[in-house]
Amino acid sequence: MSQELDVVAIGNALVDVLSHADDDFLKRHGVGKGTMCLIGPEKAEQLYSEMGPAVEISGGSAANTVAGLASLGGKAAFIGKVADDQLGAIFRHDIRAQGVVFESKPAPKGGAPTGRCMIIVTPDAQRTMQTCLGSAGNVAPADVDENLIQRAKVTYLEGYLWDTPLAKKAYIRAAELAHAAGRKVALTLSDKFCVDRHLRDFQDLVEGHIDILFANEEEIKALCEVKSFDAALPAIKGKCDIAVLTRSEKGAVIVHSGAPVTVAAEPVAKLVDTTGAGDLFAAGFLFGYTRGMDLARCGRIAAICAAEVISHVGARPEVSLSAFVEQRL
Amino acid sequence: MSQELDVVAIGNALVDVLSHADDDFLKRHGVGKGTMCLIGPEKAEQLYSEMGPAVEISGGSAANTVAGLASLGGKAAFIGKVADDQLGAIFRHDIRAQGVVFESKPAPKGGAPTGRCMIIVTPDAQRTMQTCLGSAGNVAPADVDENLIQRAKVTYLEGYLWDTPLAKKAYIRAAELAHAAGRKVALTLSDKFCVDRHLRDFQDLVEGHIDILFANEEEIKALCEVKSFDAALPAIKGKCDIAVLTRSEKGAVIVHSGAPVTVAAEPVAKLVDTTGAGDLFAAGFLFGYTRGMDLARCGRIAAICAAEVISHVGARPEVSLSAFVEQRL
Repeated sequence: MSQELDVVAIGNALVDVLSHADDDFLKRHGVGKGTMCLIGPEKAEQLYSEMGPAVEISGGSAANTVAGLASLGGKAAFIGKVADDQLGAIFRHDIRAQGVVFESKPAPKGGAPTGRCMIIVTPDAQRTMQTCLGSAGNVAPADVDENLIQRAKVTYLEGYLWDTPLAKKAYIRAAELAHAAGRKVALTLSDKFCVDRHLRDFQDLVEGHIDILFANEEEIKALCEVKSFDAALPAIKGKCDIAVLTRSEKGAVIVHSGAPVTVAAEPVAKLVDTTGAGDLFAAGFLFGYTRGMDLARCGRIAAICAAEVISHVGARPEVSLSAFVEQRL
Repeated sequence: MSQELDVVAIGNALVDVLSHADDDFLKRHGVGKGTMCLIGPEKAEQLYSEMGPAVEISGGSAANTVAGLASLGGKAAFIGKVADDQLGAIFRHDIRAQGVVFESKPAPKGGAPTGRCMIIVTPDAQRTMQTCLGSAGNVAPADVDENLIQRAKVTYLEGYLWDTPLAKKAYIRAAELAHAAGRKVALTLSDKFCVDRHLRDFQDLVEGHIDILFANEEEIKALCEVKSFDAALPAIKGKCDIAVLTRSEKGAVIVHSGAPVTVAAEPVAKLVDTTGAGDLFAAGFLFGYTRGMDLARCGRIAAICAAEVISHVGARPEVSLSAFVEQRL
């Protein structure tokens, strides 16, 4: 076993295609604002042909989290599936250039291309995502690198990948390997509709396998089948060690065995694009957690990381997060 | 003949790969700051593997200019060569989504991939470019669409493409077609070293075929073989109808048959990335020129367009330039 890692993440290996549009564009395409929707290659081509000029930036929820963790100075690895094509080379370059270990083999030539997430940013800085999974959805149990899981203090999973059957098995295998090695397992619920689609599965997963849960207000209400955020706090308590519940500009609440810890949002000069806010919040939290910091400090670092990523286009940090956080702590 | 166009541009169809690095990175790779250098696929792979995380945005000097012109509300077309690959599809999408006519056929499969321009942005916002031309360098006389040239008030050429022999012939053919149709021909010199490499050729081209010349200080000094900017003004006068000479934060001087017109630079709140400054200056100038505005007003619009593009990463406008200019005129 080589060097210990802070976090190994398993998730969708995606390149984001970011474009600006107004709310009418979403309505015309029947797309629910603020959500993530899976689309096939034909729908993707059609949507892309009607989108404005775009920018390509590596993305993927869990991949953004480990990129953020590496930018903070943490040691991270990523497991995910790109194709052997130009977008796959871009994804691989960007995550490695950020210092993340990424050794997953690309899918063989001739299959689906590297996954793309088409992101429409509306004038209110909200992001709406239409994902064409491509090769990203082909993560299978055999892709779960046992050595990486055993070396990492935390194995981090993204809910989005739960839409693909083989990936579910990969997650269970990863969680079991991690726990057998005395490690922790974290999950982000990713999207309210993703929780709705797999409610019972997610409830079982959280109770049976998850130590640290990340969710926003809508997601935790859906998981706990309650109508208010306040009702979700007692409902989730005890189901996992720690639940990190984010609330956009209202900050976050961390539920654990003691009294809940409240975290204030970090102010931003200009809100540009909320893509990656949750991913980078998780990055900051896990950086503190894997260094044994108290929950309030973990939350504070998390809030600062989220503030950096929503102040520019794209879901990966634009500056060194370690310096950015240090100036603000 | 269908609708009249303002500008048709011929140039390198490139996707920019933008990354931040310090001056030491340039020194280690023996790269001259602020220049454009052509590199082969192997050097490109090596450089890319050592670059930090990047962002992909469609680029190419003349392509940026027509994208800017379209964003101003002008009618533009582009002639250039992408490959039949993912980066080619990105380039095609972005320029069409901006409203530019782009009908050039992609190069057949199996040849060079779509060209990439690796751009290192240093902390002073200066850009240094290493270009792997790929399919972009294969523009040939047969690609010059006679109908587009005849329909456009101005045919716009970029000096960068002069490095490829077939493209030179394409340029001469385009210039002759344009003049036979009673149209104007414009050229941007692109890069001092590009001028140095092809000095006599460029001098002949300008005197024989060019009505409107765009150049920065270094480029015009190189073309006129003089040591000072002041000496370049009388030297270029009479060699073409109009010479638009840009000087970064010192604004620009427009040389024509009358007294030179001085243009002030438009102030920017924060200088982020100078990539595309000259390209968008040309876009603004040509927008005014093709509407018959006086040279001072053409220059003023040009300066405002340049200010927009240097205030963010990437060489294509991030906002509607027509609204941006209107607010500032």
